[in-house]
Amino acid sequence: MNYKILDNGRIHSKGYAMLSKDAKFTPFEFSRHAIGDNDILIKILYAGICHSDVHTAKSEWGATTYPCVPGHEIAGEVIAVGKNVSKFKVSDYAGVGCMVNSCGECEACKRSQEQFCENGKTIYTYNSKDIFHNNEITYGGYSNNIVVSEKFAICVPKDAPLEKVAPLLCAGITTYSPLKFSKIKEGSLVAIAGFGGLGMMAVKYAIKMGAKVSVFARNENKKSDALAMGVSSFYTSTDKDAVKERFDLIISTIPTPYDPSVYLDLLKFGGELAIVGLPPVEYKIGIQINTLIHKAGKRVYGSLIGGIAETQEMLDFSLKNKIYPETELISPQEIDKAYENLTSGKAKFRYVIDMTKE
Amino acid sequence: MNYKILDNGRIHSKGYAMLSKDAKFTPFEFSRHAIGDNDILIKILYAGICHSDVHTAKSEWGATTYPCVPGHEIAGEVIAVGKNVSKFKVSDYAGVGCMVNSCGECEACKRSQEQFCENGKTIYTYNSKDIFHNNEITYGGYSNNIVVSEKFAICVPKDAPLEKVAPLLCAGITTYSPLKFSKIKEGSLVAIAGFGGLGMMAVKYAIKMGAKVSVFARNENKKSDALAMGVSSFYTSTDKDAVKERFDLIISTIPTPYDPSVYLDLLKFGGELAIVGLPPVEYKIGIQINTLIHKAGKRVYGSLIGGIAETQEMLDFSLKNKIYPETELISPQEIDKAYENLTSGKAKFRYVIDMTKE
Repeated sequence: MNYKILDNGRIHSKGYAMLSKDAKFTPFEFSRHAIGDNDILIKILYAGICHSDVHTAKSEWGATTYPCVPGHEIAGEVIAVGKNVSKFKVSDYAGVGCMVNSCGECEACKRSQEQFCENGKTIYTYNSKDIFHNNEITYGGYSNNIVVSEKFAICVPKDAPLEKVAPLLCAGITTYSPLKFSKIKEGSLVAIAGFGGLGMMAVKYAIKMGAKVSVFARNENKKSDALAMGVSSFYTSTDKDAVKERFDLIISTIPTPYDPSVYLDLLKFGGELAIVGLPPVEYKIGIQINTLIHKAGKRVYGSLIGGIAETQEMLDFSLKNKIYPETELISPQEIDKAYENLTSGKAKFRYVIDMTKE
Repeated sequence: MNYKILDNGRIHSKGYAMLSKDAKFTPFEFSRHAIGDNDILIKILYAGICHSDVHTAKSEWGATTYPCVPGHEIAGEVIAVGKNVSKFKVSDYAGVGCMVNSCGECEACKRSQEQFCENGKTIYTYNSKDIFHNNEITYGGYSNNIVVSEKFAICVPKDAPLEKVAPLLCAGITTYSPLKFSKIKEGSLVAIAGFGGLGMMAVKYAIKMGAKVSVFARNENKKSDALAMGVSSFYTSTDKDAVKERFDLIISTIPTPYDPSVYLDLLKFGGELAIVGLPPVEYKIGIQINTLIHKAGKRVYGSLIGGIAETQEMLDFSLKNKIYPETELISPQEIDKAYENLTSGKAKFRYVIDMTKE
């Protein structure tokens, strides 16, 4: 048995935690709640590093509870199952994304949009009070295992490239969801603003859905990458005034200060601006309603990850079409360095921690 | 012949103008461009007073060109037609709303959304430079006649209550258009925020389209009016937290400072917030994008009057279903007093000037 059950039924776990907002990551032993009848225990093989891990670990999005074990892009192998579990058996692969539980009873949960649980009971994968388990704080994927309700685990086929599956569970669903929400199909005209990790995923999905895809980037550095991916037009921000195309959907993944309303001019009448990138809140980036009226008939909405059913759909779509993020495997010893690179903008690809290494 | 053609072919006209931003209205004689082959000459019988007339006449929305003859809610009788005119004959009734011309060639004009002319050639009914007629400034409906392309004139049947038709051409289309844009139908759940002139029109249209309609108002003063109109729930702003309903569409007609994002919480997933009311621009009312992301899946858009085809559709729908604004007829001598009442908030109904009176 490659896991340890403590006397109280809880599962022993080893991970990497920040003990305060200015600390470095250190090895951290803790326990997870017992494997309930509907739960599975996953041996974590890969954990992606999301930029929001950095914000949370450093208390940049409000006060974080320490020790903090981040990680909501988790892929691994099922090593134990509760007696009522039907979706998984031992040795299956499974994934966990941003959420581990919700009320299950409200309208949002019933349509599998657990991130919008109307009773406010969405439990996030880390740094969240788990009201279903004695209010303990959740610990994320920078660890050797996790216990999760099978309803919140994603089925992963055994031939899937697990280190690519992990980051799909956040970066993938975040970009897949607005494309589905806006009903993108063959021939749709789509633009992606911001061509980092999220932007690249959005481009890949949109092209596979049959859209004609344009990119707006800060500069021409990644133009050849974009064209190689099948992008039909690549614009830098300064080109915007010259753009003749009008789009059905623009997805903004831009994480830095900018004026979102300029993208309204580039939409068709009835077109939509989906916002998934979140610049630092202190910049108060927004759109004034007189701008909305003078650029009338253009819809704006925000999009926030996606529900469990859609996450499964996204994973199936990604695997079938071989849509993966660019990743760079690191060992747990390299997390601090990865955080530095993410903060300084030096990171080129999605970092994925190989959790089988010490 | 009840009109005078000047030697140069232009049409003599008499109206009421403001000569400067602080002036009172004074009688004003001027001329209108000659009746082109596709133009009609309308003897104006009724002209509605829109709150935007007040803002423009007082240079509150930027520098106005004086003399200024406001009025974009015009109803009257056709008294002359150009040789190519086919929609109208002499003695027909006709209406003119907010626009009198546009390029006619761009995609927006082709789909009859002339207010969004992509070549920027929308000519508004007053205080607009008419590039199709030697750049003369347009004069509006507070006058005895108007010359307009038949394409921009609305057909009005002879049995229509003309004094009610006039204000429909702005207040009617402004509220009808977002209901159509959001595809409201039998059983839709609609809420109207702000229960002034625009709000009442929105309620009437939405109910006639089969929606279940709620109202959000500042206080309970008009509750009985609303219930008599068939509104199913009437909430004051302070009730919002207790509202259990979730809407497909909320139309905000609110013209004063408020936080539009609170209405996002009252939308269904995928629901829409349409903004037609414009609080004074200096308040910089808007929605931040982190709010859009945290209230994800709720669409926001602005709506600005409507195109000519939709204005005709709105008028036909209004007449068929006897949907009219509450109006109060005044003489031209009472315009200044009406402006005072609009500014002070004392106006109870839509003022309509009887232009047959001197």
